[in-house]
Amino acid sequence: MNSISRADCERLDALDPLAHVRDRFALPPDTIYLDGNSLGALPCSTPARIAQAIEHWGNRLIRAWLEAKWLEAPQRVGAMIAPLIGAADDEVIVIESTTIALFKAAAAAVQCTPDREVIITEAGNFPTDAHILQSISELTGVHIRTVEAYRLEEEIQSVGENLIAVVLTHVNYRTGAMHNMAALTAATHQTGALMIWDLAHSAGAVELDLNGCGVDLAVGCGYKYLNGGPGAPAFLMVAKRLQDQLENPLGGWLGTADPFAMAEEWIPAPGILQFITGSPAMLSLLALEEGVSTFAGLEMKEVRAKSLALSKLFIDLIDQRLEGHGFIVASPRSDIRRGSQVSLSHLYAAEIIQALIVRGVIGDYREPAIARFGFTPLYLRYVDVWDAVNHLHEVMINQEFQVNTREIQTFSSV
Amino acid sequence: MNSISRADCERLDALDPLAHVRDRFALPPDTIYLDGNSLGALPCSTPARIAQAIEHWGNRLIRAWLEAKWLEAPQRVGAMIAPLIGAADDEVIVIESTTIALFKAAAAAVQCTPDREVIITEAGNFPTDAHILQSISELTGVHIRTVEAYRLEEEIQSVGENLIAVVLTHVNYRTGAMHNMAALTAATHQTGALMIWDLAHSAGAVELDLNGCGVDLAVGCGYKYLNGGPGAPAFLMVAKRLQDQLENPLGGWLGTADPFAMAEEWIPAPGILQFITGSPAMLSLLALEEGVSTFAGLEMKEVRAKSLALSKLFIDLIDQRLEGHGFIVASPRSDIRRGSQVSLSHLYAAEIIQALIVRGVIGDYREPAIARFGFTPLYLRYVDVWDAVNHLHEVMINQEFQVNTREIQTFSSV
Repeated sequence: MNSISRADCERLDALDPLAHVRDRFALPPDTIYLDGNSLGALPCSTPARIAQAIEHWGNRLIRAWLEAKWLEAPQRVGAMIAPLIGAADDEVIVIESTTIALFKAAAAAVQCTPDREVIITEAGNFPTDAHILQSISELTGVHIRTVEAYRLEEEIQSVGENLIAVVLTHVNYRTGAMHNMAALTAATHQTGALMIWDLAHSAGAVELDLNGCGVDLAVGCGYKYLNGGPGAPAFLMVAKRLQDQLENPLGGWLGTADPFAMAEEWIPAPGILQFITGSPAMLSLLALEEGVSTFAGLEMKEVRAKSLALSKLFIDLIDQRLEGHGFIVASPRSDIRRGSQVSLSHLYAAEIIQALIVRGVIGDYREPAIARFGFTPLYLRYVDVWDAVNHLHEVMINQEFQVNTREIQTFSSV
Repeated sequence: MNSISRADCERLDALDPLAHVRDRFALPPDTIYLDGNSLGALPCSTPARIAQAIEHWGNRLIRAWLEAKWLEAPQRVGAMIAPLIGAADDEVIVIESTTIALFKAAAAAVQCTPDREVIITEAGNFPTDAHILQSISELTGVHIRTVEAYRLEEEIQSVGENLIAVVLTHVNYRTGAMHNMAALTAATHQTGALMIWDLAHSAGAVELDLNGCGVDLAVGCGYKYLNGGPGAPAFLMVAKRLQDQLENPLGGWLGTADPFAMAEEWIPAPGILQFITGSPAMLSLLALEEGVSTFAGLEMKEVRAKSLALSKLFIDLIDQRLEGHGFIVASPRSDIRRGSQVSLSHLYAAEIIQALIVRGVIGDYREPAIARFGFTPLYLRYVDVWDAVNHLHEVMINQEFQVNTREIQTFSSV
């Protein structure tokens, strides 16, 4: 392999069909942001949109719910997310958080299969998925079986007709390894069970075809690749064919057919709307709308192509420039198996991440011993990747990382 | 009773020790807002605070979670709410929504009393409370017994040792009638059950002493009297003595003892923190912080005194000026039984509310046949009450309401 120069990266940027999309974001100077998989960057349009929403609240008070179309925002933003994940407009709704969304998806699956007893999930998944499944187990008595990824298909077959659902995260938060959605969904369906995907590290970064794969339910995060801002609400996808069979296990007044009829009985709203529970956190939801709008006019196919090109460039540069410094690429090198991040395993990963942050290169640390770098194709340039690896090289040759402290200063949400 | 004049009301305003608090709000001109029990008004400080938070996000990106103290916001704002409801600082946390908070409270109660089977609640409560209790019943198999308010104490005794919890809304959304918190809590405790109060229409309007009454759990709304903005998150109070016995039934990573340890097992954070689930919707949460800060330096005793004075003035003026127009005061006339609203029953309540809105007097309509007027003591003046009743009088004598339409244009969240 020929050595890759910064000039090569400049040429890639000049040819990049997505280069102009960077202008949709308000990025701070002197920062290379490789943590958009944890908190996406600020879209340029968000401050004015939120200021306007606050003005609507102040001037129109309660009337703003209808006048400013707040009431329909959960389904409106859901419909904007739908094409990014290969779902229909009326299959996606924005709700509380990824964890609550996963509760709704998995508990609804439990309730519609009273003769089945087991949910299968994967070891090494992001903890909140395991936690909320444990909660469902404690509430309903179903069993959660947690298996290693390589044993999933075998376990699905083995549980067979006793299987309620399989709950998997499409792209692993730690390694960036990506499951075969079509194959695992098909294997799950062979038992008659439901397939539930957590798309936290996929939506907005990876090309998805939920309907093409026959996915039953999915959840995903609003504040990572969708750029919805800190703690932005999450989304829930329920396949059209299941919307009348499944029931929101957290029934609330805004998910009823006529909230203002004030009926004591919970009569679900038609379609995806029943999965709303209480009043949505509107400022955060409208910020998510601006975040999703940064994808306007883009095809996920081209977004994915750039994402892969960026992460491959990073891996190639690590191979080329960091040999002998103790890094192991912990993410799949195969494009078909890699999400939109590259994780490097290193004994002093935590300290190295700190040293990079001092230099304005923002990645994050994950236990144990993982330096994690996310590649957001909407606002990263190829030269950013080159510069980031260059900084990393300098950190290593100057030994800028302090090995005597293990205090980690980064916070990140997944 | 002597006739009350507008000049009398001007005198009351001049003497009002809370008059200056109105300056903390950005109120639109030519509007008398009697719907702050549905969506509180905009505090003056909110726009700048949210703009600053968005700036932190843009400039500091993921680092803002620690630098801007977002991570501790749920407990920080909870501690600000605590003195308003008679709880200790470490007994209150801000979480998703009132409905989700009620799920957490009641399902936690179910899980800690496996040998008991019944939850008692009240007919005519705001529907979302009934809906979420129904969800808990469907998930866990416990029974929900819904009884009329006057039969509550009898039913509590009758269920006795089989009682898990009593779930009541302190102030009824429709009538404004207020329960005797101390008496019902004591009656519930006699059976060994837990008492859960929904404070949606109480917190920020009524003097509360949760600890004095020995209340076990409570939930409340952020967007009504607490002025947190559209769909602001809610709060959950768990009495200190129960925080280790109860477990969050919607376990998530941010409620664990060490979220960044990424442990698969859910190990609850100490105290109230375990009741957080996923990442909080930060923009909405910070708006709630500004909303709660409008109570700075105020005693709930004086807030309550003004609230009662306003609602009593309204009732007196209705008696004085609207006699013969078909109104029935549907709220308790007794101060000790009345929350912070006055509901008027009228055959054409919906149309009358519409006619008032045209005149800039914002109340709301509730099925069936209730015109509802909320009195927010932080920003309402006595002359506003006088002017509102004067408008109502003119609406009636001019027959400005159209009786041939029943289409309601108001939206309100409870």
